[in-house]
Amino acid sequence: MNDPALSRREWLAAASASAVAALVKTRADAIDALGRQVLAPTDPALGHVVTVLGTRAPGEQPRRLLGPLELSSQSYSPLHLLDGIITPADLHYERHHGGVPSIGAADYALLIHGMVERPTVFTLGDLKRFPAVSRLNFLECSGNGKLGFDQHAAPQLTPQQIDGLFSTSEWTGVPLATLLREVGVRSGASWLLAEGGDSAHMDRSIPMEKALDDALIAYAQNGEAVRPEQGYPARLFLPGWEGNTSVKWIRRIEVTDRPTMTREETSKYTDPLNDGTARQFSFVMDAKSIITFPAYPWVLPERGWWEVRGLAWTGRGRITGVDVSTDGGRHWDAAELQEPVLPKCAVRFRHLWNWDGGDAVIMSRAVDETGYVQPTFRELAAARGTRTFYHTNNVRAWRVATGGAVTFEPGALA
Amino acid sequence: MNDPALSRREWLAAASASAVAALVKTRADAIDALGRQVLAPTDPALGHVVTVLGTRAPGEQPRRLLGPLELSSQSYSPLHLLDGIITPADLHYERHHGGVPSIGAADYALLIHGMVERPTVFTLGDLKRFPAVSRLNFLECSGNGKLGFDQHAAPQLTPQQIDGLFSTSEWTGVPLATLLREVGVRSGASWLLAEGGDSAHMDRSIPMEKALDDALIAYAQNGEAVRPEQGYPARLFLPGWEGNTSVKWIRRIEVTDRPTMTREETSKYTDPLNDGTARQFSFVMDAKSIITFPAYPWVLPERGWWEVRGLAWTGRGRITGVDVSTDGGRHWDAAELQEPVLPKCAVRFRHLWNWDGGDAVIMSRAVDETGYVQPTFRELAAARGTRTFYHTNNVRAWRVATGGAVTFEPGALA
Repeated sequence: MNDPALSRREWLAAASASAVAALVKTRADAIDALGRQVLAPTDPALGHVVTVLGTRAPGEQPRRLLGPLELSSQSYSPLHLLDGIITPADLHYERHHGGVPSIGAADYALLIHGMVERPTVFTLGDLKRFPAVSRLNFLECSGNGKLGFDQHAAPQLTPQQIDGLFSTSEWTGVPLATLLREVGVRSGASWLLAEGGDSAHMDRSIPMEKALDDALIAYAQNGEAVRPEQGYPARLFLPGWEGNTSVKWIRRIEVTDRPTMTREETSKYTDPLNDGTARQFSFVMDAKSIITFPAYPWVLPERGWWEVRGLAWTGRGRITGVDVSTDGGRHWDAAELQEPVLPKCAVRFRHLWNWDGGDAVIMSRAVDETGYVQPTFRELAAARGTRTFYHTNNVRAWRVATGGAVTFEPGALA
Repeated sequence: MNDPALSRREWLAAASASAVAALVKTRADAIDALGRQVLAPTDPALGHVVTVLGTRAPGEQPRRLLGPLELSSQSYSPLHLLDGIITPADLHYERHHGGVPSIGAADYALLIHGMVERPTVFTLGDLKRFPAVSRLNFLECSGNGKLGFDQHAAPQLTPQQIDGLFSTSEWTGVPLATLLREVGVRSGASWLLAEGGDSAHMDRSIPMEKALDDALIAYAQNGEAVRPEQGYPARLFLPGWEGNTSVKWIRRIEVTDRPTMTREETSKYTDPLNDGTARQFSFVMDAKSIITFPAYPWVLPERGWWEVRGLAWTGRGRITGVDVSTDGGRHWDAAELQEPVLPKCAVRFRHLWNWDGGDAVIMSRAVDETGYVQPTFRELAAARGTRTFYHTNNVRAWRVATGGAVTFEPGALA
């Protein structure tokens, strides 16, 4: 009964179904003397033994895509190659202002001072001793999606190139609120300055309200120690907020009564508006979604049923719905949201589409629990102008051409 | 305001707190001319630039632990080094019966035949085209925890050695129910035979009810392609069931009207009982928990508050509670369960413990939504005898000795 050989009748029955016949690959060693397809025999040789650390299959080598190296600078997660919501740590996007410093665990220290009763230096061991929290959260660079807001962008762009400064991990750390209770925040304190230990001294001002809400000093990512490029040994992590506020290699937190107005939040990380003013502080990442399949560079080999798959997220809590259009925005259908739908976390959405083989434009639109709806290009441009390159969360679209080639459709107005 | 230097008064205030003074490390380059502690200056050199694939910090090199290599055979996840619930794919435990075969994506095929209307061969592309499901689920070898059920086990055992044949991933694949609808299951069919493409031809019988419930043919793990040692290109995945039923490198599913009674489910993977009979089929992994900190080889450096941390899971749905005892089982307190608590998935539990510095035995006890309570050694021995080495989910205990050294406490009877 364990014999893998099939009866002749079973094989003929299988072969008679044209759909099956089309699927069965012909290989020299997979045809027997009677001309029947046979399964490849199992290699009788023992496979390789267990290893202390696994490696990927030779044919599966997902990679981050490097941005301009003169900026030292950024790498993009391969969104079009990933399923589910988790990003493997070695594929998590990067954005550095001064490269990745080498900081040993024993050399690490976090000073909290300023408007506090007890200025304190915490070692890594101290941080790990406090009650911990683990959460699945996305992280997104506020500059993610520039090309998605560019009407002149090339059509040969992948989801990785458009929105790959976005990744999701399980983050573990100590709530910043715990540490602030330890040091005793003085009356009148309302902001923090968070400073990193990299050569750029990356620093951002954070409102006390966020620090006391869900901010972590995170030392673990997907179970293991935070990776060097993610802030090893420890980083600030602010769920749902623009990535660079989650200061990596965090070495100093100064409690203040006002924002410090660092270079990173004046010359950078403000959003210029059409009237010549700028939007400052645009901390929260608004609801957004992108279809990751079908998308460039995929080619649909045939008409028929395909599952449109993508990612949606919002910094304001939970995604409550994703609508998908397959006719350029004239009609929208509710996509299925893959459980669990967690706050400030990527959600995988799925929508079955019966492609008729003709030219089609497909797009997705996320809605979150605050009622916020992912804007169109036109809506976002009207609100912010077109000179901004932060928080460009407008609807993304893909064109599926007759023949199945998929390309990016910039500036979709639907 | 961005100057990291502290005022002399701030430093003196900090230094006067003995707890702080104990934390501040003395380094030659961290004492200024006035003898004051100063933060290590940031290295002015640019850190390393972005990379296509990240690597771990030099000081953080978690590894699987290899079992006896003559069995070819098993490797254990480093549970004592992990936070949260996710296991990085390269640290996911392994159990092979014939080593890891090398199967290319293009060579992969899954045949479903037997009591079906349309025997069909599915390529990997076919499997990926069907509507997909992603889920966070644990996987556990039914032989996990043998040493946890051994009254003569050595005290120098880590959580990795005791229960490291346990890992958690986000798995993505096509529901087996979808494929069975495609091939048309014939009336009277009630079981499947699932067979792997490894040199051991690993095969197990699966009831149709499970196949139609939540079984997947999984091709992705934590976002990326399933790793070779986890069944690349595709494996059966049966949430909550003993690991070897989730047949890796799945190449053939035969629909039957009875269990096939393969070697793997007669000479192996049955549980011998005291009366000379054996329990067959013991598919479901019952509720279990283990404290991962403090545990061997950790040493608590001082008395006071410590967070007891561990993992709990059940194959029967959701964990509803974990109780922790710090006095050898006389008193139990409800631990905090880290959200999200997902079905058939690891749950991180946490419990604050004020260690008085004396000898203590700590243990955890999981309860699931069916009301099942993780048994003591004595209860499990009474139900199954002591000759079984599958499904040994009895309560695990650790002894924290005066001085802080933690060792495994075998055969805890509480």
